[in-house]
Amino acid sequence: MSSNAYTQLEKRFARMGALGEAAGMLHWDMAAVMPEGGHESRAEQLATINVIAHEMLTSAETGDLLALAGEGGLDEWQRANLREMKRVHTHATALSPDLVEASTKARAACEKTWREARPKGDFKLVLPRLQAVLDLTREAAAAKAEKLDLSPYDALMDEFEPGARAADITPIFDDYAAFLPDFLGRVLEHQKRQVPIVYPKGPFSIESQKKLGEKLMATIGFDFHHGRLDTSLHPFCGGTPDDVRITTRYNEEQFADAMMGVVHETGHAMYERGLPVAWRRQPVGQARGMALHESQSLIVEMQAARSLAFCRYLSPLLSETYPGNGAAFAPDNLARFYTRVEPGFIRVSADEVTYPAHVILRYRLEQALVAGDLKLPDLPAAWNAGMKQLLDLTVTSDREGCLQDIHWFDGAFGYFPCYSLGAMTAAQFFAAAIDAEPGIPAAIERGDFAPLIGWLRVNVHGRASSLSSPEIIRAATGKPLDAGVFRRHLERRYLNA
Amino acid sequence: MSSNAYTQLEKRFARMGALGEAAGMLHWDMAAVMPEGGHESRAEQLATINVIAHEMLTSAETGDLLALAGEGGLDEWQRANLREMKRVHTHATALSPDLVEASTKARAACEKTWREARPKGDFKLVLPRLQAVLDLTREAAAAKAEKLDLSPYDALMDEFEPGARAADITPIFDDYAAFLPDFLGRVLEHQKRQVPIVYPKGPFSIESQKKLGEKLMATIGFDFHHGRLDTSLHPFCGGTPDDVRITTRYNEEQFADAMMGVVHETGHAMYERGLPVAWRRQPVGQARGMALHESQSLIVEMQAARSLAFCRYLSPLLSETYPGNGAAFAPDNLARFYTRVEPGFIRVSADEVTYPAHVILRYRLEQALVAGDLKLPDLPAAWNAGMKQLLDLTVTSDREGCLQDIHWFDGAFGYFPCYSLGAMTAAQFFAAAIDAEPGIPAAIERGDFAPLIGWLRVNVHGRASSLSSPEIIRAATGKPLDAGVFRRHLERRYLNA
Repeated sequence: MSSNAYTQLEKRFARMGALGEAAGMLHWDMAAVMPEGGHESRAEQLATINVIAHEMLTSAETGDLLALAGEGGLDEWQRANLREMKRVHTHATALSPDLVEASTKARAACEKTWREARPKGDFKLVLPRLQAVLDLTREAAAAKAEKLDLSPYDALMDEFEPGARAADITPIFDDYAAFLPDFLGRVLEHQKRQVPIVYPKGPFSIESQKKLGEKLMATIGFDFHHGRLDTSLHPFCGGTPDDVRITTRYNEEQFADAMMGVVHETGHAMYERGLPVAWRRQPVGQARGMALHESQSLIVEMQAARSLAFCRYLSPLLSETYPGNGAAFAPDNLARFYTRVEPGFIRVSADEVTYPAHVILRYRLEQALVAGDLKLPDLPAAWNAGMKQLLDLTVTSDREGCLQDIHWFDGAFGYFPCYSLGAMTAAQFFAAAIDAEPGIPAAIERGDFAPLIGWLRVNVHGRASSLSSPEIIRAATGKPLDAGVFRRHLERRYLNA
Repeated sequence: MSSNAYTQLEKRFARMGALGEAAGMLHWDMAAVMPEGGHESRAEQLATINVIAHEMLTSAETGDLLALAGEGGLDEWQRANLREMKRVHTHATALSPDLVEASTKARAACEKTWREARPKGDFKLVLPRLQAVLDLTREAAAAKAEKLDLSPYDALMDEFEPGARAADITPIFDDYAAFLPDFLGRVLEHQKRQVPIVYPKGPFSIESQKKLGEKLMATIGFDFHHGRLDTSLHPFCGGTPDDVRITTRYNEEQFADAMMGVVHETGHAMYERGLPVAWRRQPVGQARGMALHESQSLIVEMQAARSLAFCRYLSPLLSETYPGNGAAFAPDNLARFYTRVEPGFIRVSADEVTYPAHVILRYRLEQALVAGDLKLPDLPAAWNAGMKQLLDLTVTSDREGCLQDIHWFDGAFGYFPCYSLGAMTAAQFFAAAIDAEPGIPAAIERGDFAPLIGWLRVNVHGRASSLSSPEIIRAATGKPLDAGVFRRHLERRYLNA
């Protein structure tokens, strides 16, 4: 009886999973190829799919089946699947269908206006739409907080990274904010004493950059039979595990950002593609959470691809693609280039050392916005004050300030901490992978990612959502998340310490 | 109460409409950009969306609301919308879920075998599977016939072109079959006396062809703010009215087919884009039927773009794109090229004069198959006899005979007549448009499609499904479909008569 209930639940969740995949493809299309005029009808399509999936998840039948289904007779993965079903059900039943539909529409409208406001640095243009998004987000946070017995902000984070709690994160981030000023000063001093970086000379055609990106994707192990590389304003990894769509954006003046952006998204793509085929479209078969997802992009980008070992592989490849840049493409110059530290305004261009400062700023601001302690019209000023305090930088346009990221304008509050949790987790996974497979750095130097990806397949990707993030980290590395591993990685890389 | 029922129906159908749009976008993606490995999960996504929409349409709640909803208090378009809701509901509920499932499976299996049988010209290989499809189609036709009070064949046609009846079509097609032999002989004689066609020299880069296609799309009035041009194996017009996606395929040896293919699909696109915004995603807001849709592609392609007037506009454009082809791009040479007549075996390559013969052959055969008067093992012989009679051609392989089109093998019986009804309707619309706006030919010569498209917007596109096709034709042209208009168009164009 209860295992029959489980079987019926699997069927229901398979439908919801297929709807989720459809929505994922439509999101990719919207960002990568859709003409401007398609926004309104796309919003209707996405709202309809989301509402139907939400109704299916929150229906009385699903609730009854979940109440009925026991773990008896289920194997380990089925039990984990049932737990995940219950988790997403709890999140979903906290919100009314009207609230879900209103949020979806408000976010689509806000995102569209943001695309207009950002290049102009015109925060006021998008303010009313962002206010609508924030109001609905606060309403959702309150509803979830009650259901999950969490604070509103924790309730929002829990959707992106199950189990993430401000009480655990705040001390880690406060420590980093305290560690940063002195460390950053020493890194900048150390950097000054190094040979100056030689920069390659362009222009670098978009076509050549795309080919280079695809070459590196193949090197890392991306399967083009099951995915594509395209262009969008905000690079992302979307689609489905069997059809992974990553995007980047190009600048003909320099290729370095797009190239490393592609490497980063490829890390995400490898995670999606490595999820267990037997559990496609089931809750337990999904990637665990956004922090763990970010750990997979950052282990490939930050830990592997910005290492001196990988720069030795890159060097001849770049010389072949862009001849006449011998000195710029020398491995140690490339490594210095790809690990140069320079405090700046833009999160996505930030180096590994200052990146957490961008996240900490957003983490603090979005907590205040959700709590109601900060009003939206005051956001630009609060942002600019935070940048001054954390990185000693003076923001002169909201284009380089609070308008730079899509997240809030798309309703994603509680997401930002995942980036730096991911960076710290990546450092810990990489150290554990090398402990287990000492040949990994030498393989990376040969452009062979198979040992690293193989370790991740077993220890992270293949586990999907069968364990919690802390359980995955502990099972893979033998201990809970230890931010000290990240700091030691930074000290080794940036101070040769 | 009954108008409340209508309001609820509008909400339900808006959801189904949004799901239909989502499926349309996913189909476009599958044909235009999806990597091979995405097929299995895409099939799951589409099946899920289709099943959900079908369940919504055939649910007891929808049936109850349709029974309850009266026309009192509704305006003209709302009444038409209610009629359309009832029509699609009747079609959907006429078949048992078991029959729908059996048909879907039989068609998928048959189509797969057909892909193997066609290149070999091996009809016997696919015969058992086609028999299964035909048996189920006849069962479906009988079920729909009873529900719709139509003959089985009319019931099948009604799904593709609502209101199409064999009693109206047969005399029109018989007349054309009688007119054709003598007319074709005269056309071929006339053609022999003309200056030989000069063919342009390539190669023609894909990039230049795409630019040319986009230029012509813009000329016709395609709104790139609401649509795109892409590439797929089989050209089509998909997407949604607010985001029309047309595709073509390129051949670097010659540009003429891709170019005219783009013009053809642009005609379809203009229809979709011209549907009334207020009725998006409602049944009454959809394009009327396949014959009327084909009339919109053919009025742009056959009536407008293959005219000498348009060739005068094309001439300098082509000379600029592909220099050194002066003689080939002279307007009268272009016009002769784009109106050359040559009887052949393949429908999709047929010219305007012989195309109806291909359709009439299929129309007669599929009627006999559905009626049970023709047995499938006798189909090849009957096909070949028909080709001999209609076009005096001797079929030597079923590859170029009854295996050439996917339609029957995919279960689409009753679709073929739409092609030639579309061609005849296009001729009648074009004549009526010129009667109303005598400046249309001169405008086309200047590359100005606004007067023609403006007339179509009001008289065809904007009417969507608020009237039946015969009503639209009568309202727009003052009389029912009159095949004589098409014959006179052919006489003028092909005999200068």
